[in-house]
Amino acid sequence: MEKAYRLAEEAGVRGEVPIGALIIRDDALISGASNTKEADKDPTSHAELLAIRAACQTLGNWRLTGAILITTLEPCPMCLAAAQQARVKAVYYGATDLKGGALSLNYTLHDNPKLNHQFEVHSFPFEPAKKILTDFFRARRNEQ
Amino acid sequence: MEKAYRLAEEAGVRGEVPIGALIIRDDALISGASNTKEADKDPTSHAELLAIRAACQTLGNWRLTGAILITTLEPCPMCLAAAQQARVKAVYYGATDLKGGALSLNYTLHDNPKLNHQFEVHSFPFEPAKKILTDFFRARRNEQ
Repeated sequence: MEKAYRLAEEAGVRGEVPIGALIIRDDALISGASNTKEADKDPTSHAELLAIRAACQTLGNWRLTGAILITTLEPCPMCLAAAQQARVKAVYYGATDLKGGALSLNYTLHDNPKLNHQFEVHSFPFEPAKKILTDFFRARRNEQ
Repeated sequence: MEKAYRLAEEAGVRGEVPIGALIIRDDALISGASNTKEADKDPTSHAELLAIRAACQTLGNWRLTGAILITTLEPCPMCLAAAQQARVKAVYYGATDLKGGALSLNYTLHDNPKLNHQFEVHSFPFEPAKKILTDFFRARRNEQ
């Protein structure tokens, strides 16, 4: 989670919402990414989705079977659904997102028996991951 | 929808699940894409998500305000959520996906008042879009 947090910090420095994500498998780091939505002009350039895509390219497979997604913020429905598509084993997130998080919004598709893959999602409270977001949005409001 | 169907046909020729999608704004075609998940080894390379990303690159903006997504198959939760992220105006889909479609699975995030953008989703029944999928999966079962 600390490494994901450092990726979040990098996003913040670039003026992006500070979120970072990693893919780990068998205790090895496969990929890491930070939010580049503004720079890429791409609404899908969330850290989690980019980390999933990068890991697939590294492994040469769209299936990330056995892999773990670690993200500093509770994934949005798009990113949780991308983790489902990639068939990850588990997701761990650092800060809860009451407004946009998939679980907070009751889109608990990770354990939907109607889908062809289920996986675990765990909260892994990490105060800096929350604080960097709070500070970022406070600074942005003050600029306006 | 016919043009999206032709993109679905292209995907089928390449051995991909035959799905195609377009982004239209002000009656102008902005982008078109077909499913390239196997070729890209990317679980996010669904036609809809690729069409959204391509349209954003063409327009130089992650917001597709006023745009319409047309897809041959009911979008999965990831793609419907990507349309929400991109702030499209509406989605029209040709064939219903009872097993994997976001609406069929009750992930109706397009009209969730808790999210910061709402949009319309309409079924636009188009028999060839359904038939090409049925034929594709029947052929694949016969191969096994």
